[in-house]
Amino acid sequence: MHRFLCTYRVRAPRGQVAAIADAIALEQSVEVPRAAVHDPVLAERIVGRVAEIRERADGDHDVVIALATETVGGDIAQFFNMAFGNTAMHPHVEWTDVALPDDLLALFPGPRFGSAGLRSATGAHGRPLTCSALKPQGQDVAALAALCATFAQAGVDVIKDDHGIADQAYSPFAERVAACQRAIDRVATDTGHRALYAPSVVGAPRVVAQRIRAAQDEGVGAVLLAPALLGLPAFAEFVRDDVHVPVLAHPSFAGAARVAPPLMLGTLFRLLGADAVIFPHYAGRFAYSQQACADIAARARAPLGAHVAAMPVPAGGVQLDGVDDALAYYGTDTMVLIGGSLLIERDRIGERTRRFVDAVRGAAQVAGATA
Amino acid sequence: MHRFLCTYRVRAPRGQVAAIADAIALEQSVEVPRAAVHDPVLAERIVGRVAEIRERADGDHDVVIALATETVGGDIAQFFNMAFGNTAMHPHVEWTDVALPDDLLALFPGPRFGSAGLRSATGAHGRPLTCSALKPQGQDVAALAALCATFAQAGVDVIKDDHGIADQAYSPFAERVAACQRAIDRVATDTGHRALYAPSVVGAPRVVAQRIRAAQDEGVGAVLLAPALLGLPAFAEFVRDDVHVPVLAHPSFAGAARVAPPLMLGTLFRLLGADAVIFPHYAGRFAYSQQACADIAARARAPLGAHVAAMPVPAGGVQLDGVDDALAYYGTDTMVLIGGSLLIERDRIGERTRRFVDAVRGAAQVAGATA
Repeated sequence: MHRFLCTYRVRAPRGQVAAIADAIALEQSVEVPRAAVHDPVLAERIVGRVAEIRERADGDHDVVIALATETVGGDIAQFFNMAFGNTAMHPHVEWTDVALPDDLLALFPGPRFGSAGLRSATGAHGRPLTCSALKPQGQDVAALAALCATFAQAGVDVIKDDHGIADQAYSPFAERVAACQRAIDRVATDTGHRALYAPSVVGAPRVVAQRIRAAQDEGVGAVLLAPALLGLPAFAEFVRDDVHVPVLAHPSFAGAARVAPPLMLGTLFRLLGADAVIFPHYAGRFAYSQQACADIAARARAPLGAHVAAMPVPAGGVQLDGVDDALAYYGTDTMVLIGGSLLIERDRIGERTRRFVDAVRGAAQVAGATA
Repeated sequence: MHRFLCTYRVRAPRGQVAAIADAIALEQSVEVPRAAVHDPVLAERIVGRVAEIRERADGDHDVVIALATETVGGDIAQFFNMAFGNTAMHPHVEWTDVALPDDLLALFPGPRFGSAGLRSATGAHGRPLTCSALKPQGQDVAALAALCATFAQAGVDVIKDDHGIADQAYSPFAERVAACQRAIDRVATDTGHRALYAPSVVGAPRVVAQRIRAAQDEGVGAVLLAPALLGLPAFAEFVRDDVHVPVLAHPSFAGAARVAPPLMLGTLFRLLGADAVIFPHYAGRFAYSQQACADIAARARAPLGAHVAAMPVPAGGVQLDGVDDALAYYGTDTMVLIGGSLLIERDRIGERTRRFVDAVRGAAQVAGATA
């Protein structure tokens, strides 16, 4: 009989934790009172079990529940349903970890390229990678393509659309992707540096699948997808069936208050097939702690069955003069994403971008805290 | 120039709220520092605007941001991206409301049947509706079909799969759906009462679309889908392109800590096309407040452009002896869902189900607090 382990952080008085753990075990398996489980075989085989309850240093408790692999039925959506479906609605419970047996690990696509594949695709070895974003939205296709050329000329490794850029009238998807990829191609011919362009693909499943195909037909080197926005099972299906290039996962709509960010972004996005995982750097404009960021990066790289490492991408307000600190913290196997901070001085975008590129290229020697 | 209004509840000291509101306005539109918006036309047309800041009685603030409809580009996924993409990662911000102009309201499918359509489909007029769930999972197809027959014979209006039932080896989807629908058909022939059977459909988009078709080919009267589990844009696409019967929306994985439950379940699930919205009743095993439940029900029924009302479905631990209170609270235009509580005494499931059905049928006269 196979089980997988889910850990939940429970905020409740000590005397209530055992009852809450039992309630989670029922809720995430049979979803009936124990008295309604009449069949002893079913009770033994299917009902969730409390595997462990540990008090944490902060007074909360870590509750580990062993859930039956059979209940997942070989489906990724159903995995999330069993791991955290109804319990997601309990405000005192946060899903913090998962331990999967090999058959469940193999259910997920995982990164097809991962860190190593991103290095092959960009030719960037032995140093951190650079990434920037085409923004702000509202500019027309020519302006975005010109910015793309500026970034590519300055030597950025990966150039992504801002995640807010979709298929708006002011920069339609097909036209924008073609123009930006042509800009990449021109710079490659002129300078020999071929950046990877990752268009943002947003929409309902059939639209996304069609746009991924169209972008790949234009020769893009990667795509940017937001798993929590598109739907986690949909994201995994795109990875498996539609995408032939590396995937950057964006955290949009992953308001991960109930799923701990290291689990959601570091483990789950990777399991679902992200090759690079964008997350809010602790020194940026989001309130992620240093520890949470270290944990996200560590989980993106840690052994995970047969799945290769994904590349951590600190982002969300990284400043030009904060690059060295970020690299000292995350280490070499990192892609640094700076967007808005490059754009502040309109006439010096190329110069600021080159400073960014040089800072990262010069950081090949740094020994990262988490690397 | 068209704008839509998003309201966010911000937990922060009074002196910081204006700066936070400005940061949200930038984050949810151009996602760059204001200094990086060089084009005055773009600043005027695209950048989000702080429309209002109101102090709440509890000391938090409601911040209303006017976002440009243009940025949505006519796509539902992109709407969520613009409304709450990156801001979902700010722990001090909760998305609590949205006000949409007619063109954005028309972007969403909304309920195709709604409350009135569910009444037509069940023939239940002038009284609340009853609903129960086939559970626990782990039983085989014959056992689930027998329970379905028991519920149908007792006169339940809508019989849904437990949301945890997917396509597991012990009750494969195709076989289970066929057997349960045949049980419904037999009871209809024998007694004249035709319950609606709503199978739970879980999976990645292509799998879900195929199973919805297969279930409809079997003649099912409804389907159960979990928008937050499947992905909000995927759910809306299924409603628009694949589903020809009423849709019950299940809150699984909607750990709505950062999206207020009345907005997520009452407004957004309805906009996306749910005909009936299942939510945790305040007297059940989830910690939703009475007020939150009243707000969910009110939003499912309130005027919303041209969209018809969806039916509120209180669930999640409703007890047999709590039906009267629930109906007094929610009123007649309600479907009451009891699952596990009917199953506790194995030999009296039919009897307890008839008590449930009679309690609801007898409640036609009640005047609900929120109706």
